[in-house]
Amino acid sequence: MANPNYEKYLNDPEDLIEEMIDGFVKSHEKRIKRVSERAVAKQKAPVKGKVGVVSGGGSGHLPAFMGYIGEGALDAVAVGDIFSSPSVDHIYETIKAADGGEGVLCCIGNFSGDIMNFEMAAEMAEDEGIEVDTVIINDDVASAPKEKMENRRGVAGEVIIWKLAGAMAEKGYSLEDMKETAERALFKTRSMGVAHKPCIMPTNGEPSFELAEGEMEIGVGHHGEPGIRKDTMKTNDEITAELVDIVLEDLPYKEGDEVVVLVNGLGATSPLEMYISYRKVYNMLEDKGIDIVKNYIGEFFTSQEMAGYSVTLTKVDDELKELFADKCDAVSFKQMKEDIK
Amino acid sequence: MANPNYEKYLNDPEDLIEEMIDGFVKSHEKRIKRVSERAVAKQKAPVKGKVGVVSGGGSGHLPAFMGYIGEGALDAVAVGDIFSSPSVDHIYETIKAADGGEGVLCCIGNFSGDIMNFEMAAEMAEDEGIEVDTVIINDDVASAPKEKMENRRGVAGEVIIWKLAGAMAEKGYSLEDMKETAERALFKTRSMGVAHKPCIMPTNGEPSFELAEGEMEIGVGHHGEPGIRKDTMKTNDEITAELVDIVLEDLPYKEGDEVVVLVNGLGATSPLEMYISYRKVYNMLEDKGIDIVKNYIGEFFTSQEMAGYSVTLTKVDDELKELFADKCDAVSFKQMKEDIK
Repeated sequence: MANPNYEKYLNDPEDLIEEMIDGFVKSHEKRIKRVSERAVAKQKAPVKGKVGVVSGGGSGHLPAFMGYIGEGALDAVAVGDIFSSPSVDHIYETIKAADGGEGVLCCIGNFSGDIMNFEMAAEMAEDEGIEVDTVIINDDVASAPKEKMENRRGVAGEVIIWKLAGAMAEKGYSLEDMKETAERALFKTRSMGVAHKPCIMPTNGEPSFELAEGEMEIGVGHHGEPGIRKDTMKTNDEITAELVDIVLEDLPYKEGDEVVVLVNGLGATSPLEMYISYRKVYNMLEDKGIDIVKNYIGEFFTSQEMAGYSVTLTKVDDELKELFADKCDAVSFKQMKEDIK
Repeated sequence: MANPNYEKYLNDPEDLIEEMIDGFVKSHEKRIKRVSERAVAKQKAPVKGKVGVVSGGGSGHLPAFMGYIGEGALDAVAVGDIFSSPSVDHIYETIKAADGGEGVLCCIGNFSGDIMNFEMAAEMAEDEGIEVDTVIINDDVASAPKEKMENRRGVAGEVIIWKLAGAMAEKGYSLEDMKETAERALFKTRSMGVAHKPCIMPTNGEPSFELAEGEMEIGVGHHGEPGIRKDTMKTNDEITAELVDIVLEDLPYKEGDEVVVLVNGLGATSPLEMYISYRKVYNMLEDKGIDIVKNYIGEFFTSQEMAGYSVTLTKVDDELKELFADKCDAVSFKQMKEDIK
């Protein structure tokens, strides 16, 4: 059979999502189970006496969302088509799979389709007596002005909220406390990204968005949504400085603050480039007297093979530091218990 | 300043390696130290009473080599220019940094420049009374026939050997036993890769190798070296089946064998594609009665943003299974202590 899409390693695009989930479940048989055609969960879920933590969204962002299933992170995930929301039924199965009697917290990105479907699924679960609450993640500074934060998209900050919510659940937080702490962390979490090459959509072989040669999109979203402007590609130092400046001013983050930094690669941007970016972030924050207590550098939330990266800051207090320090053993996101000063 | 290379997020290409190492060390301050301009080591190295494990090679392969520094993996790494061997002096500093009195095992890929420079550095270290031995990793089936295994290149199998050698060192193996066990594991480790898009060299903005549109290189090396043939891009199932068939026949791996499988992304190939590949590997091995006891799927040894992937198999026995099961806490390679049946 000829590959319908010379840009990628695929079979029939119709089977893409099924094959991906099948491969994912087969690769983590001891830890992951399938709970419906488009929903996967931790083998041990539901965990009695612990709030369930779930997420979900369109495919094409691995390790998001499935890779965050595991101890100290998500209990279950609903899987959509490429860049499309999961269906209500599968979200409902996801919530049910995660409920151990203490309720379920849905931590999802601020996309209208996801919100609508998670809301409907939550209602179905509530009708069966499952307590459900939702945190809508809107960390992308580029996507709306500060006065309209409710319109901002979710980007790599979603990973931060999953990590924190997962840690809270392991520690025995109530659903109410989890939501409150997650929203406090979310408010202090801001991101800004850049891309200069789109990904290729596996369904039709077309690029996810258009950019001229040598051009970049400052503030790009995770599906190639437009940011704040297009510009000629500049040096890493110049680009990173702009991303960091915009993020810093937005909260604002100030001298004496302690922060966690996440530099997220969108797919085709190499760790080599990301470490160069991190170096610039580090130098800028050091100059401003902002203390980085922990960092994450790598591909945490991709847009297939889009070339670009984002910088996320979370301002932390003692409680958040402790949650960041906790062990996490998700499929694609692991850390030992740490000492965060 | 205009970016000299619109393909990537860089500053002056002259400063590339320095900035990458600087960013890497800054991002892991508590765990990593710089021991020379082009050598980095675990903060705690040398560890008294433990054999030191070191590696090194050209840059552009992150998370290889630096990302494997940490508990249960490498103690120190020598860093070369993009796709070029590290210098003798920096390898010498790397070996010295890793020596805790029980000798040092160098686990390096089979590339003439690396071998020559590691040999000279080892001699310098031996003159100072440090016992040094070397394992030359040659897992790439595509690069020479079986009768000339000594000519085969190292590819993703290097990661397997680092993991095993790191685990052996933590367990208190002697240098001699480590070399013997690492070479036994290496002999049972075979890889085969494919690529259909080169990476762009940060130094001059040129692609690392040439392929026509819709063409792939079966058996490609980690620097874009030619494999066994060029062909028109096929489906994932067809390509993966060819890679697996070639690997299986080479040892050969047989019914009843237990294996560890590594599916390694070369840079721009997404986890979505890799899970589809893994699914095919799983189905093929299941059909043949070969039992996968553990798997690794992700970007472990890249070629910057080359698009492609490789499949590596290691046939295991009880000793190797125990070493694979051990905890590993390297910067970019983490696993909790596991139960491998």
